[in-house]
Amino acid sequence: MERHLDLQLEQLRNNLLRMGAVVEQMIARANVALVERDEAAIAEVIERDHEVDQMEIEVDEACHSILARMQPTAVDLRFLVAVMKITADLERMGDSAVNIAQAAQQLNQEPPLKPYIDLPRMSAMVQDMVRESLDALVHRDTALAVKVCKDDDNIDGLYKQLFRELLSYMIEDPRTTTRALHLLLVARNLERVADHATNIAEDVIYYVDGRDVRHSLAKSKVETGA
Amino acid sequence: MERHLDLQLEQLRNNLLRMGAVVEQMIARANVALVERDEAAIAEVIERDHEVDQMEIEVDEACHSILARMQPTAVDLRFLVAVMKITADLERMGDSAVNIAQAAQQLNQEPPLKPYIDLPRMSAMVQDMVRESLDALVHRDTALAVKVCKDDDNIDGLYKQLFRELLSYMIEDPRTTTRALHLLLVARNLERVADHATNIAEDVIYYVDGRDVRHSLAKSKVETGA
Repeated sequence: MERHLDLQLEQLRNNLLRMGAVVEQMIARANVALVERDEAAIAEVIERDHEVDQMEIEVDEACHSILARMQPTAVDLRFLVAVMKITADLERMGDSAVNIAQAAQQLNQEPPLKPYIDLPRMSAMVQDMVRESLDALVHRDTALAVKVCKDDDNIDGLYKQLFRELLSYMIEDPRTTTRALHLLLVARNLERVADHATNIAEDVIYYVDGRDVRHSLAKSKVETGA
Repeated sequence: MERHLDLQLEQLRNNLLRMGAVVEQMIARANVALVERDEAAIAEVIERDHEVDQMEIEVDEACHSILARMQPTAVDLRFLVAVMKITADLERMGDSAVNIAQAAQQLNQEPPLKPYIDLPRMSAMVQDMVRESLDALVHRDTALAVKVCKDDDNIDGLYKQLFRELLSYMIEDPRTTTRALHLLLVARNLERVADHATNIAEDVIYYVDGRDVRHSLAKSKVETGA
């Protein structure tokens, strides 16, 4: 029985990691869609969203089934609860990647407002956070999870800086307003993905240590403007 | 044992409802903060966020404890899993109410851009959705849960309409841009609360029927602009 449970948990972990890899790739491709004005990347991100939705249902059902049939305890129970919360965060990250791809689609209909420098940097940082939050889960690495929580502050800083810059574009030249709003949407969705990675990192800390760090680690959910 | 479990679940349900009532009230007070330019309401919403954070931790810990000690099965197990997902949604609704109150704080420093008609209407609809999603849980009422999912489409429609209106303000007169962006932030946060209510409704359907309706009911997460 114990052995059987271990196998099931191992399989669950692999499926969750596969889901995470798809989501991470969607965020990377959404960035390509934006920066390289790549229509194929836009279509790919939108298409893969269904895959992530399906993976969420499968992983959740596996969790329910293990809970119901094997009645795991202690650390295994905390792991299952963490996984069920994490799938919801990953699924919403996938939605954010789709929102970015759709914004890119709109932006590609006009000349670029400005060279994209901060957004690709922000996207790369966010992708790291997603990967590291799942690495922290797999290796039960709470130090890495704490790092992810702290990185979120840098993302919030970048977002605020971008917000101010785009606001000044809009005020100086209203012809830029629509494009600036779409770029703001991209930045906000990246910032939201970072929040979800932070949620995952907090779930990892609870799973490993059994201590709840939500609302105690510096987790600023400040939003500036739209 | 069975009887003991029932008592624990009853207490859990009451605590969850109390948390829901606080969140619903925060959304209502955030609307007062905006429409009546009420500084006390702003402070109240920001203050109550801690209460919601604390309630989330308490309810989650109660769920863990019941899972670990009583090993509930079938419908009771699905209920506990639903509750753990619902607390996360309620907590994020509380964050959205805070974002709205903070936007109201910014908006109160300048004369109103326009009379607020659509936003209070949207806020009232969203508050109904929050209450109905929790009523659906308590009464195991899947028909009510399906209604909540459908109402979300109306909210998305209202959001898109407001977005277009605010965009035209910004383009016609850049002096309105900052205020329009803050109003857009309010609308977007209401739209996000509606999404969370929809998540709860979907969890209720899974809890009652054991069927997963995520990604199958018409649940559009379309975002227009920022």
